[in-house]
Amino acid sequence: MTATNWLHDAIASMPTHDAEAYLAVSDRAANILRPAGALARLDAVAAWVAGWQRTAHPTARRPAALIFAADHGIAAAGVSAYPADVTAAMLAAYRAGKSTINAFAAVAGASVLAIDVGVGRPTGDIRTESALSPERFAEAVIAGRDAVDALDADLLVLGEMGIGNTTAAAAIAAALGGGEVADWVGRGTGVDDDGLQRKRLAAETAVARIATITDPLEVLREVGGAELVAITAAIVAARHRQLPVMLDGYVVTAAALPLHCMNAAALDHCAVGHCSAEPGHRRLLKRIGKEPLLDLDMRLGEGSGAMASVPLVAMACVGITDVPTFGEWFG
Amino acid sequence: MTATNWLHDAIASMPTHDAEAYLAVSDRAANILRPAGALARLDAVAAWVAGWQRTAHPTARRPAALIFAADHGIAAAGVSAYPADVTAAMLAAYRAGKSTINAFAAVAGASVLAIDVGVGRPTGDIRTESALSPERFAEAVIAGRDAVDALDADLLVLGEMGIGNTTAAAAIAAALGGGEVADWVGRGTGVDDDGLQRKRLAAETAVARIATITDPLEVLREVGGAELVAITAAIVAARHRQLPVMLDGYVVTAAALPLHCMNAAALDHCAVGHCSAEPGHRRLLKRIGKEPLLDLDMRLGEGSGAMASVPLVAMACVGITDVPTFGEWFG
Repeated sequence: MTATNWLHDAIASMPTHDAEAYLAVSDRAANILRPAGALARLDAVAAWVAGWQRTAHPTARRPAALIFAADHGIAAAGVSAYPADVTAAMLAAYRAGKSTINAFAAVAGASVLAIDVGVGRPTGDIRTESALSPERFAEAVIAGRDAVDALDADLLVLGEMGIGNTTAAAAIAAALGGGEVADWVGRGTGVDDDGLQRKRLAAETAVARIATITDPLEVLREVGGAELVAITAAIVAARHRQLPVMLDGYVVTAAALPLHCMNAAALDHCAVGHCSAEPGHRRLLKRIGKEPLLDLDMRLGEGSGAMASVPLVAMACVGITDVPTFGEWFG
Repeated sequence: MTATNWLHDAIASMPTHDAEAYLAVSDRAANILRPAGALARLDAVAAWVAGWQRTAHPTARRPAALIFAADHGIAAAGVSAYPADVTAAMLAAYRAGKSTINAFAAVAGASVLAIDVGVGRPTGDIRTESALSPERFAEAVIAGRDAVDALDADLLVLGEMGIGNTTAAAAIAAALGGGEVADWVGRGTGVDDDGLQRKRLAAETAVARIATITDPLEVLREVGGAELVAITAAIVAARHRQLPVMLDGYVVTAAALPLHCMNAAALDHCAVGHCSAEPGHRRLLKRIGKEPLLDLDMRLGEGSGAMASVPLVAMACVGITDVPTFGEWFG
């Protein structure tokens, strides 16, 4: 089976959550030694984890972050505040344990694995050509799938790095989310007014080029990037491995969007850690119907917003598993 | 010196933060290996911690929670969904390491100490008499101060337990914050409509009784509770020990309000972990000019909202201390 066939099949055969585990935790939450409903969203998070882990004893003790990195041809169009070789430099920093995500992960007790899916091998210029050939697309699918399959983890954090990739994210969001393309384009790493204009124009040109394409995965291949494709595949693979997923910011959520377009339930095993300051992210979250756990104005990517929320997920779980019910305490 | 004199003197002599440490971290934040401003509020948190710890190397590695517990005479008026003896039961649960705050603290790597400042010794009925005599007030001040002085910690989480204490909090907030008393009264642990009416009436009667009192600490003594007084004193003691404070929900913030009324800078070493679902909390946060880190609809108290934010503070710190600058990385 080709990787692309695997992806289609895996999307078509996504398991639902374990309703029994979900209800067991919801019921227990209502009887825990605290006023009913006092933990509100955190109790809901615990039940969500339980449903996807298929156990009444949800945990977030072995969180793992996968950071996919790749380069983008569109970076040459001056759409970023940073030169393209920063992608490689940041990949090296993740691997040396020296970037922000590594520091956050140490606090959260999480592992971090940075995966090169195209650093130094930029995508095509999305204004005029496909980002990825079918072969490159398949390669990225395999990288995302296999990285998830190799994990020993109970919670997956997805992150990305790729200079130029908020332009790719905006093109996907606009092509699949509709509305004015410019409304999906923000300053990314902090581009100036001229750069923002270039970025809008690049996204508009790319979206216009693929106006007749309706298959969400083809949109992803045409205007996305290798790290986005790997993330899309990782989300799907996690679903088949009973692994709840914390999505990060705009780029990761844009990589998730094609799945939502194909099946409104495809992202039910995913939660959103943090709403990015990148304005398109809030629009995208509304589109996929998800409320972030955090809203701290961050706009770093590399999985940092998702990782920042991991201790909350861990607290939600121990708030169910490590606290007695009224009956257990008084009984 | 009496405890009450200590409190007045300590409020009058509050140190300012270390501007040099604050600026050192703010400057470093602007040069760390990530886009300038990408961590937004977390970088601001790190600089805030640095200023109050008086070091350019801020940490949140030894967080400590103090949970003050006490009973309230007003509980007899049917203002809570739970009977008064739940205060003692929860105190026992904290000490057995079995409550939600203990589970959250384990995730955050924090210690938890629960301190009895009046369990089984209810305050006066605030509708008709002072909550605390000057002697009981002084005793609670000492308990709060000494608990902080005994800590080995780099970040202080303050929490409370006391059936009836959201009525006391509402009375303090209304007396010092102004406006309609009823607007400061919420459902607390989840009181029904009749209970809410009783609660409003109780707070209104208490506030009317002390209409001529303007000294914020006298308001606290008249309509507060022993755990609130201990928290007020703990906040002041922390300021003198270079210890940043994470405030919890409505009750803890109400205990902080008298300090803010006496000196607009008195809470500068305090941040707010979480905005409670108790509606008065958001009003109170606006009154003291603080933005919570989290907004998750929780309404548990016992320090849980503040504790939930502790990993974010820890991440903010390591995001400065454990990540190189561009200069350090590229050399």
